[in-house]
Amino acid sequence: MKPVNHIKIKKSIIVNELVKKMEFVGVLGAGRLGKAVNICEAMIKDKNCKVFLGLAGPLVPAGMREIIMDIIENKWVDVVVTTGATLTHDLGEALGYRHYQGSADADDAKLYKKGLDRVYESYMPNKIYEGMEDFIAENFDKLKDKKSIKEFLWEIGRLTPNKSILKACCENKIPVFCPAISDSGIGLMVWGQLAKGKEIETKAFEDMKDIIDIAWTAKKCGVIYFGGGVPKNYIQQAMQFSKKASYGVQVTMDRPEPGGSSGAELREGISWGKLNPNAKFVDLICDATIAMPIIYAALKERIKV
Amino acid sequence: MKPVNHIKIKKSIIVNELVKKMEFVGVLGAGRLGKAVNICEAMIKDKNCKVFLGLAGPLVPAGMREIIMDIIENKWVDVVVTTGATLTHDLGEALGYRHYQGSADADDAKLYKKGLDRVYESYMPNKIYEGMEDFIAENFDKLKDKKSIKEFLWEIGRLTPNKSILKACCENKIPVFCPAISDSGIGLMVWGQLAKGKEIETKAFEDMKDIIDIAWTAKKCGVIYFGGGVPKNYIQQAMQFSKKASYGVQVTMDRPEPGGSSGAELREGISWGKLNPNAKFVDLICDATIAMPIIYAALKERIKV
Amino acid sequence: MKPVNHIKIKKSIIVNELVKKMEFVGVLGAGRLGKAVNICEAMIKDKNCKVFLGLAGPLVPAGMREIIMDIIENKWVDVVVTTGATLTHDLGEALGYRHYQGSADADDAKLYKKGLDRVYESYMPNKIYEGMEDFIAENFDKLKDKKSIKEFLWEIGRLTPNKSILKACCENKIPVFCPAISDSGIGLMVWGQLAKGKEIETKAFEDMKDIIDIAWTAKKCGVIYFGGGVPKNYIQQAMQFSKKASYGVQVTMDRPEPGGSSGAELREGISWGKLNPNAKFVDLICDATIAMPIIYAALKERIKV
Amino acid sequence: MKPVNHIKIKKSIIVNELVKKMEFVGVLGAGRLGKAVNICEAMIKDKNCKVFLGLAGPLVPAGMREIIMDIIENKWVDVVVTTGATLTHDLGEALGYRHYQGSADADDAKLYKKGLDRVYESYMPNKIYEGMEDFIAENFDKLKDKKSIKEFLWEIGRLTPNKSILKACCENKIPVFCPAISDSGIGLMVWGQLAKGKEIETKAFEDMKDIIDIAWTAKKCGVIYFGGGVPKNYIQQAMQFSKKASYGVQVTMDRPEPGGSSGAELREGISWGKLNPNAKFVDLICDATIAMPIIYAALKERIKV
Repeated sequence: MKPVNHIKIKKSIIVNELVKKMEFVGVLGAGRLGKAVNICEAMIKDKNCKVFLGLAGPLVPAGMREIIMDIIENKWVDVVVTTGATLTHDLGEALGYRHYQGSADADDAKLYKKGLDRVYESYMPNKIYEGMEDFIAENFDKLKDKKSIKEFLWEIGRLTPNKSILKACCENKIPVFCPAISDSGIGLMVWGQLAKGKEIETKAFEDMKDIIDIAWTAKKCGVIYFGGGVPKNYIQQAMQFSKKASYGVQVTMDRPEPGGSSGAELREGISWGKLNPNAKFVDLICDATIAMPIIYAALKERIKV
Repeated sequence: MKPVNHIKIKKSIIVNELVKKMEFVGVLGAGRLGKAVNICEAMIKDKNCKVFLGLAGPLVPAGMREIIMDIIENKWVDVVVTTGATLTHDLGEALGYRHYQGSADADDAKLYKKGLDRVYESYMPNKIYEGMEDFIAENFDKLKDKKSIKEFLWEIGRLTPNKSILKACCENKIPVFCPAISDSGIGLMVWGQLAKGKEIETKAFEDMKDIIDIAWTAKKCGVIYFGGGVPKNYIQQAMQFSKKASYGVQVTMDRPEPGGSSGAELREGISWGKLNPNAKFVDLICDATIAMPIIYAALKERIKV
Repeated sequence: MKPVNHIKIKKSIIVNELVKKMEFVGVLGAGRLGKAVNICEAMIKDKNCKVFLGLAGPLVPAGMREIIMDIIENKWVDVVVTTGATLTHDLGEALGYRHYQGSADADDAKLYKKGLDRVYESYMPNKIYEGMEDFIAENFDKLKDKKSIKEFLWEIGRLTPNKSILKACCENKIPVFCPAISDSGIGLMVWGQLAKGKEIETKAFEDMKDIIDIAWTAKKCGVIYFGGGVPKNYIQQAMQFSKKASYGVQVTMDRPEPGGSSGAELREGISWGKLNPNAKFVDLICDATIAMPIIYAALKERIKV
Repeated sequence: MKPVNHIKIKKSIIVNELVKKMEFVGVLGAGRLGKAVNICEAMIKDKNCKVFLGLAGPLVPAGMREIIMDIIENKWVDVVVTTGATLTHDLGEALGYRHYQGSADADDAKLYKKGLDRVYESYMPNKIYEGMEDFIAENFDKLKDKKSIKEFLWEIGRLTPNKSILKACCENKIPVFCPAISDSGIGLMVWGQLAKGKEIETKAFEDMKDIIDIAWTAKKCGVIYFGGGVPKNYIQQAMQFSKKASYGVQVTMDRPEPGGSSGAELREGISWGKLNPNAKFVDLICDATIAMPIIYAALKERIKV
């Protein structure tokens, strides 16, 4: 048995060094954070491993956008699956809008009058929809023939005037999946075109061949989940058609007992054939916006880009 | 100010009577459960109100299937939005499979060998996929031309040999939406057909016209969420295109602070224009599988079917 | 393997009947609630079993006071361990004060000016302290010689003008322990006397002999926890000196991963020798104010008082 | 309105620099962590401010012991309030025992046979009790006359052969309070002496004068809570007798809705007169063992010891 080693901090410690001290704690929150970085490092460095990144929750309104773009541009991951909300926030910022620092105790009726949409304590200006409406309307002819959601999203990325998560995916040829894209601001803008009588070819089941193909043909797979939802579950089901994930890191605040996929421990995936019983994996119970910068800062030290 | 009234229980109390006592507590868990039943009752009885029901989490593996079918058959709700997992579990049971009582501490590697897929402490037999594969294969010709996910799902309901949530929706003409249907066992079975070279017409954005139309043309809207995820969010965005929800009940175990949609308090929706500032609404922090039977039992007393 | 049985509800179901249906679900929230009632029933009916009840959280401001008094008066439990806050709320009500229905979104600065102390969405009038100060001052001579906290609390119960949890304990000779009594409004009122130069004999470690004696001499022990904190932990450590608890029911909203005692699964107690590996036990993840009335209503049907 | 600034990380970032980037996010988990460090820094640097530190949860089994000792030795705090469990783990390590890295999925019956007491995934060797029994037995004559729990704990610190949290408190004359000390391994060892017919003078209400005096005479007060429980509540009630806390930082994983003190938002304290409405305060929803090393590392950069 390894003893729990207490963290001793002297002045000016770099993040990676602190994370290594956490690794030597070996248990509970700190120990799991240390382990999470190790497993991410291992799967990214493993040349035979395809890394699937699932992103859910308000990562863009919480200041994580640059880190996500860097992860993609570093080619640390081979597949991104995310929510329509994240892509909507991302597109909004790419079109020049910002999110704002607010309060969870605000008067929501007043915010409504001010045109501020609250995401816990972050505010999104409602006029973001106007910019997106124009963007989708102007580019609809280039989007309407896209058969798969992935192609649809890559095209948005290609058309985006500034840096964005979608542009990073498109330029680096990282497949980006979003099964519930219709459940988002982007979806609403597409609906706006459909309401005017236009049509769009994008099909609901089309991406499945792509994501399962990547999993199926990979020598090994690794999964990294910030948040749960459809992104996690969609990657998990692709893992059933791989040689089972060999690495897994999950960062979530949802709890397992209610039985939903978002809060399910990774270990549960072993029973489904989604996770290899010999896999290296860890469940980190932490707000993604705290864990992500720490994990990224530590990985940046460890992995030559 | 109203005082908190203590619950006093004598022998043989019916559920509805207990819920009324909870109503007179007026605060915290018990008070909110009392309020939740009142708001559900009000929206269901309100002839001018369209009721949107969002269902996420392992409701079928947790024994809630009959209640859900009854809610639909009672025509208490006008729209159902759910996850692919729920529909997969439902279809599995309609094809004659069952879920089983298990343990969260089980050895997942052993479960894998036994062909049991664990959902916290409920087990789904993996051979359910065989039955579903046959069902989808046999019926693919009837499914492949369905333009919208709703039509696709109604057709599955129509074809289902036994009672099911989907059959209840189809027979009662209750629209059922599932934006992320590809993220499910049903999705995997469709992929199996695509992998054999078949094609399917179902489009990703097609349902949006339907659900927004229902919201847009309703005199009033009410929302009931058991769990969060895409079902909640998809209804919430439809509310932006209604006169804003006039009633809201949310039952969730997710917490609001991480900022995700699933844990967001209903109040947040006021800022977005999804909820009327004068709406009657309540957030009930409770496992859906505890709250749903109690709420249903109390409503059954109050609403003539 | 037992199948998950779906709950089917017809009109006018009594609580106990619904709980039995939950028992036949067998898993997740509903199943665990069904199991919790069974285990409570078994330990209360077991003539050889001493039942230890731990109570934490705002049970009195949440309307549970009558149920708690009934549990004690029914002699369903042999020992009560609770927090100073619960006893303060209880004494306040015994002195004629009430708690009030409020809002978690209230302006706390305004509440302060109105003399309302907020407990999430329940309000306690601050003038409760005046009544308690008078009560403690008037009766200090009868309290100041009490060597143990239990004797101190029984004496308060004896002196209380109206029904109360403490009076129920005193009159029924149910030992009531509260190790952190100084951490409460009652504690503050005692401090008020000490600040005037008075003295009190009550000793910090005195009760330990009593509670451990009860555990040590019992043929069997059972534990019921609504909430965690000191009440749970104090009972748990007494179990180390019993033949290990044979029955355990825990109702909590705290999660296990941070590693604190409040959220720890009962199973963990097996490693400590606090729980028998063959014990019947269940962790119910539920707000205590929802679970307690349901459990009590079901037990009332099953156990002849 | 300030915009949310995205965190951009280049190679080799020190913890304090990352925390400053989090500060400029301004919202949600990352933003709150940034704010928490700022508020801790402000209250520690404020010469007029007495800082009260509340510690609950398995901080020693989770590797936080050196940080806690450093905080005390740095004289950053003026008062420490903690649980008996923390002091038991601390004394155990001071007597030469260690905690060990284990697994939450372990077979608890096997751990029991091996003499390992599980704290989620950390193990405490049960023989720690033997060492503590000897220590308390040998030193009982020096402990038995201590009137207050604080004096009792300082004496243990003084007697402890090696470095410890209690020794750091004793040597630096930092008052350390633990109202529920009887609810702990240390309490059990004292009980062992009482069972042999010995007596101890330590009184239950004695410390209240001390802690309230410190609060009452302070020009300003600040509170820092890692975890809730009695430590938080005992400090909170002392704040009612100060000029109300001017600074507050809370780190917790408990949720507010069930209404218990541990999960209550700091804002609630304003209604009670425990927190100044103009105070700088933040609730950080995070595992203490993740937040504490980060906060400490950042503060170490900012505060000259």
